[in-house]
Amino acid sequence: MIIVMKHNASRESIERIKEDISEMGVQVHEVEGEKYCILGLVGDTTVIDPKQIEANEEVEKIVHVQEPYKKANRLFHPHDSIIPVGSELIGGTKLAVMAGPCSVESEEQIVELARQVKKSGATFLRGGAFKPRTSPYSFQGMGLDGLELLKIAKKETGLPIVTEIMSPKMVEKFVEDVDVIQVGARNMQNFDLLKELGKTNKPILLKRGLAATIEEFLMSAEYIMSEGNENVILCERGIRTYETYTRNTLDLSAVPVIKKHSHLPVIIDPSHAGGIWWLVEPLAKAAVAVGADGLMIEVHNNPAKAKSDGSQSLKPEKFHSLMEKLSMVAKAVDREI
Amino acid sequence: MIIVMKHNASRESIERIKEDISEMGVQVHEVEGEKYCILGLVGDTTVIDPKQIEANEEVEKIVHVQEPYKKANRLFHPHDSIIPVGSELIGGTKLAVMAGPCSVESEEQIVELARQVKKSGATFLRGGAFKPRTSPYSFQGMGLDGLELLKIAKKETGLPIVTEIMSPKMVEKFVEDVDVIQVGARNMQNFDLLKELGKTNKPILLKRGLAATIEEFLMSAEYIMSEGNENVILCERGIRTYETYTRNTLDLSAVPVIKKHSHLPVIIDPSHAGGIWWLVEPLAKAAVAVGADGLMIEVHNNPAKAKSDGSQSLKPEKFHSLMEKLSMVAKAVDREI
Amino acid sequence: MIIVMKHNASRESIERIKEDISEMGVQVHEVEGEKYCILGLVGDTTVIDPKQIEANEEVEKIVHVQEPYKKANRLFHPHDSIIPVGSELIGGTKLAVMAGPCSVESEEQIVELARQVKKSGATFLRGGAFKPRTSPYSFQGMGLDGLELLKIAKKETGLPIVTEIMSPKMVEKFVEDVDVIQVGARNMQNFDLLKELGKTNKPILLKRGLAATIEEFLMSAEYIMSEGNENVILCERGIRTYETYTRNTLDLSAVPVIKKHSHLPVIIDPSHAGGIWWLVEPLAKAAVAVGADGLMIEVHNNPAKAKSDGSQSLKPEKFHSLMEKLSMVAKAVDREI
Amino acid sequence: MIIVMKHNASRESIERIKEDISEMGVQVHEVEGEKYCILGLVGDTTVIDPKQIEANEEVEKIVHVQEPYKKANRLFHPHDSIIPVGSELIGGTKLAVMAGPCSVESEEQIVELARQVKKSGATFLRGGAFKPRTSPYSFQGMGLDGLELLKIAKKETGLPIVTEIMSPKMVEKFVEDVDVIQVGARNMQNFDLLKELGKTNKPILLKRGLAATIEEFLMSAEYIMSEGNENVILCERGIRTYETYTRNTLDLSAVPVIKKHSHLPVIIDPSHAGGIWWLVEPLAKAAVAVGADGLMIEVHNNPAKAKSDGSQSLKPEKFHSLMEKLSMVAKAVDREI
Repeated sequence: MIIVMKHNASRESIERIKEDISEMGVQVHEVEGEKYCILGLVGDTTVIDPKQIEANEEVEKIVHVQEPYKKANRLFHPHDSIIPVGSELIGGTKLAVMAGPCSVESEEQIVELARQVKKSGATFLRGGAFKPRTSPYSFQGMGLDGLELLKIAKKETGLPIVTEIMSPKMVEKFVEDVDVIQVGARNMQNFDLLKELGKTNKPILLKRGLAATIEEFLMSAEYIMSEGNENVILCERGIRTYETYTRNTLDLSAVPVIKKHSHLPVIIDPSHAGGIWWLVEPLAKAAVAVGADGLMIEVHNNPAKAKSDGSQSLKPEKFHSLMEKLSMVAKAVDREI
Repeated sequence: MIIVMKHNASRESIERIKEDISEMGVQVHEVEGEKYCILGLVGDTTVIDPKQIEANEEVEKIVHVQEPYKKANRLFHPHDSIIPVGSELIGGTKLAVMAGPCSVESEEQIVELARQVKKSGATFLRGGAFKPRTSPYSFQGMGLDGLELLKIAKKETGLPIVTEIMSPKMVEKFVEDVDVIQVGARNMQNFDLLKELGKTNKPILLKRGLAATIEEFLMSAEYIMSEGNENVILCERGIRTYETYTRNTLDLSAVPVIKKHSHLPVIIDPSHAGGIWWLVEPLAKAAVAVGADGLMIEVHNNPAKAKSDGSQSLKPEKFHSLMEKLSMVAKAVDREI
Repeated sequence: MIIVMKHNASRESIERIKEDISEMGVQVHEVEGEKYCILGLVGDTTVIDPKQIEANEEVEKIVHVQEPYKKANRLFHPHDSIIPVGSELIGGTKLAVMAGPCSVESEEQIVELARQVKKSGATFLRGGAFKPRTSPYSFQGMGLDGLELLKIAKKETGLPIVTEIMSPKMVEKFVEDVDVIQVGARNMQNFDLLKELGKTNKPILLKRGLAATIEEFLMSAEYIMSEGNENVILCERGIRTYETYTRNTLDLSAVPVIKKHSHLPVIIDPSHAGGIWWLVEPLAKAAVAVGADGLMIEVHNNPAKAKSDGSQSLKPEKFHSLMEKLSMVAKAVDREI
Repeated sequence: MIIVMKHNASRESIERIKEDISEMGVQVHEVEGEKYCILGLVGDTTVIDPKQIEANEEVEKIVHVQEPYKKANRLFHPHDSIIPVGSELIGGTKLAVMAGPCSVESEEQIVELARQVKKSGATFLRGGAFKPRTSPYSFQGMGLDGLELLKIAKKETGLPIVTEIMSPKMVEKFVEDVDVIQVGARNMQNFDLLKELGKTNKPILLKRGLAATIEEFLMSAEYIMSEGNENVILCERGIRTYETYTRNTLDLSAVPVIKKHSHLPVIIDPSHAGGIWWLVEPLAKAAVAVGADGLMIEVHNNPAKAKSDGSQSLKPEKFHSLMEKLSMVAKAVDREI
C-alpha cells in the first residue's frame, strides 16, 4: 500500500500517520520528492483500513499495490486449487457440470431429472430446497422436505448434491446432508453466514452478488477461508447492468481475471445470467471457451409448470444435445467434460 | 396482470393457461383481437409467478398492471404511515434525524457524541455495534459490548437507539435493547432475517440494497410486513453505478417514486451514499427538499481515528451548523426539523 | 502523476520510461524504497498518455495526483465562472431557468409558451429544432424552420434562446441565430463538434452523456475550452443505471463534485432525468438545494399532443406554481430565482 | 403495440386516443374487460411515438409486441445477411478477423503490421487515422496522412481497410479510400453521421455505445439502413458497468440476442472491452464459441511505445498463436477462421 500525501501536508500529520501505521506492525518508508510526499508500506497491510487513512484531510490518495485478500490470493498459492467432492474434483482438467431443476418439487421429479442429467454427463445434481424469492408470495421451496428428496435422488444416482443455504441456523443440517453448500448471490455479503460456513470443511459454492466487484467477491471467499475452510468454489452468474433484455449480464471476463488473481476454481451459471432458455447454449459454450472450471445449468422436465424460473430451464433432451456440443468446445481448449 | 399470447398461440395452450390461473383463484378474461389474444387477470394476482407463465413458449409478454406488493402499497393504504418510536414519530411533518458514529468505539465516545448530536437537534442516536465489513480483516464492531454502550448513551440522553442487526440469531436481543432495528444494504434480501423481524413489532429501518430496484426494495419491506410487522421505515443510501467519484450514487428520485407507490416513510443516508464528508451537507439539503422524512448522518469526534468510515463523518460542530441550514430548507418545503 | 513500478522491474525498463517522459518535457523524480520503485512526475503531465505507460509490462500502476483537465480546473481558476448571455448571467447568485417545449412545433405554440414561461419567471427559452431521436421513424424536429420560430419567440419576449446542435455543419448558422448552443448527451463525445464549437465564442450548454463519468464530462468541456471558448455551462440530466422506474437516475452529487473541481456553472435538467412530469417538482427543488446554478425544464401547453417527450412536460400553470415553490427553496440556500 | 388504459379512464380519453392513432393509418381494436380497457394496434406502429401516448394521464402502460426496427428486423428478413467486402464476406461460416494497431503511426509500422497479421490469417487491416480521445491533449491520430498510409498497406498486402470516421464532413473521402467505415462507440447516436453514411453503399461497422441497450444499438443500425444502406456490421465492444477491473464489461449475450432479432452480422472487439492484453485470448475464444461472426483485435509491434491503447495490444507473435487456438474453437462450433 502506498499513501500519497497532499502537497501541503504538515510534518505533524505525516508523522502521526507513520506512527499509527507502525503501531499496527507495518513498516513505513517515507519517500519525499520535490512536490510529493509518499509513504510506502511494507508488511501485512490487510490489517490497515484504507478508509480510515483517507479520512485524514491531508491524505491525497491511497494506492493498493497488493490485493486485500490473502488466502484466496494466487500470489501465496500459485497452483490452482482443486476441490474434491466425493469421487469428483472441481478445478482440474475435467469440467464440473451441475445440473437439475431450480426447485425440488417432488420425489418423482427430482429422481427422474437426476437420472436424466447423469445420463447426459452431469457430475452433480443441483436443486433448490430453500429458495430466496423476491416476493414473499412466491413459492419459497419445499424446505427440509426438499432436502430429503435430494438425498433420495443422490442415493438413486450417486450424484453429489449442490443446494442453497439461506440461514446460519441451517449450517449443521447442511453439513450433514449436502455435498456442496451453495451461497446465493443475495447472500454473498451475509457475513454471519459466511463465517459459520468457514468453520466447516464442506465445499462451498459462492455465487457472485448482483452488484459485487470481483474484489468484493474474492473478499467474501476470504471470509470463509479466513475461518479455516479453504474449499471455496466461485460462481459467476451475471451482474446487474442497465441492459434489460437479459436478466443480468454474464461477465465472462471475470473468469480469466479471477484466475489471474486467485487459485480458486470458477464456474459459470448461464441459466440465471441470461434468464432465457435459448441463451443457455451459446453462453455455456462461451463459458467453456473462456476457461471456466464448470457449469451450473437448470434442467426441468416441464419448464412451463416449474415452480420457479421455468423460463430459463432446458428440457432434458436439449441438455443432452448441449453436453455433446460442449464436449467439442472443451476439447478445443484442452479440457474435457 | 395481462398476458399477451404469441400471434400463433394454439387454442390448447391458451386454454391450459386459463385453467392453471383459474385454479389459483384468479379470474381470467380472454379478449381476442384480429391479431392479438390477450388474457386479462382479475383478482389477487400476487399468487401468480410471472416467471412460470413466461416459461410457456407461446406467451409473448406479461404486463403488470398492478404492483406486486400489497401491504406496502399506497393503493390499499392511502394515508402516509407514521411510525411512533418512544415519543418520536417517523413520517410526519417533523423530520427524523438519526446521528452518531459509524461504529460504537467506547463509552466516552458514544455518550459524548450522543450529547452533542442531541444538542444540535438529532432525534435518534445511530451507532454500529455489529459491522458488516467487506474485509474479514477490518474491524467488525464491538458486538454485544457495543450494544451495552448504546444503552448507556440512551440512558444519559434519552435518545432512542438505531443500530444494525446482522443475524437472525440476534433478533430477540435486539428487540429487547434497541428502538429501531436497522437492516443494512447487504442484507436487504436476507429473507430469513426479514421474516424473523416480521414476527416482532419493532420499527425496522430497511436500507436499500446497492443494486436493488425500487420494486425489489418494496418487496423486501413486504417480506417484513407480510409476517405482521408494518413498522417499516425505508432508507435510500446510494446505488451502485459506473460513476466512481462518489462511493455510490444517491438516487433521490427514489423518494417521490416510493412515496407515490407506498405509504411507508423514507429517509436518506447522505453519509454512506457519497462516502465523503463534504458531500453530506449538499446532499442532506437536497434530501430535505426532495421530500424525505428524515436523515441518517454520521458524526464523529475524530474522523481520522474512527474505526470505520471516518472519511464520511462530520465533526460535531459541522453537524451543528448543518442542522441550522437544514431547518431553513425544511421550512421552505413545509417541514420542520 | 506517479508511476509505481513492479517489484521486479528491471533497471533498463525504469531508465527507458524516465527517458521517454523527460523527452516530453516532464521532470521525473525516482524514489526507491526497499520494495517499491516509484517515479514522481513534475510538470505538465497532461501531455502524457497514461494508457501508453501502462502498456509497459513492468509498470504496476499509474496514480493520478492531479486532474487531467486544465482550463476547466478550479485549481487554476479559483473563482466561479459567470457566463453572460445578453443581460442574463449564468453562474451567479440568481438561478438561470430555461423553460419551454421539448420540440418547437408551430409559431403559435412557441410564442405562446415563451410568453407564459417568461411571466412565471423563466429567464431563457428552450426548444428543440433539431431533435436527436432513438428511432429514425420518430419526429426529427422542424429543423431550420424551427430555428426561425424560436427567433420570432425571442423577438416577442426578449428571452434568449437555448437550442440543440447536432452537426458541425450547422455551427455557423447557430452562432448567428442562437444565444446558448446546446450539445446533447448523445453528442458529449462528438469531439469534432466540440472542437468546432470551441472556435466560436458562444455560450455552450454541454449535457452529460448517459454513461459519462464526471471526469469525462469535464474532459469534454476541456475540448471546447482548449480551442479558446471558455463559455461552457455544464448540465447534469441523469445517468444510465440499472433502475428502470425513472428514465435515468439524476446524479445530484455531481453538482457539488463538479463545483469542487471546476469553476464552471452547472445546471440540472429534471425533466429528462426522471422522464415523468410529476418528478419534475421534487427533483427541481432538490437541484436548487444541492447548489445547482440553474434548471432546464420542459413546459408544454398540451403534453399529450406534444411531438416529443410529452410525458415529462409540465403544463404552464404547474410550471408557474413550481417557480413559486422554487423561490422559497432558493432563498433557504441563499440563492434567488 | 398494445395500450392499457387506466381503470378509470374516461370514454372521451379512449375515443381521442383511438382517433389520433387511426389518423396515423394504424388500426385500433378496443377490447374491454370487466376491469381493463385495452387498445390493440394493428399495422405499421413504428410511426407512433409511445412517449407521446404515455403523456396521456389516463394511459396506464404501453406494451410493445413488436420490435421498433424494421430493416434490421429478422422478422422481415429471416436469412442472415452476408456483407461482401472485396473478396471477403462478413457473416458467413468463415469468421472475419480485423487486426492491426489502434493508431496508424508510420508507413513502416502499418505496412509491417499488415504483413504480419495477414500471415497469421487476418482478413482485414484495422488502424485508426482519426482517433476519438477522451482528452484533447492526447494524440488525435495522423488524420488524412494516416489514411494514405493505410492505403499503402492495403496495396502491399491486399487486405481491405477498416478505419473510423468521426465527422459527416469526411464521408466522401472515406467512401473513396476505405473498405469498411467504422462508427465508434461514442458516435453510435451521432444521428447526422449515421444518416450521411446511410446514403452511401459502403459497409459500415457500427460499434455499440458504452451505455446503449441492444434495442438502441439496432435502432442506430436502422438509421443507416432506413436511408438505403443495408451493409451494416454490428460490433459489441463492452458496455459500461460498475465493475472497474476491466475497462468495460464484454456483453457476449448480446451476440445470440442480436442474432435472434436481427439478420445483421455481429463481431466482437475483445481488445477494447477488456482493455488488457492478456484478456484478449480468453475473450476472443469465448466470442467465437458464443457465435460471433468475427473479431477485431489490436496488434502492435511495440505496445509500450504505441501512441494509443498499447496496454490492450497483442504482439504479432501472440496474435499468431491466438489465431491457431481460435481455429480450434471455431471448428468446435462449425465455423472456420
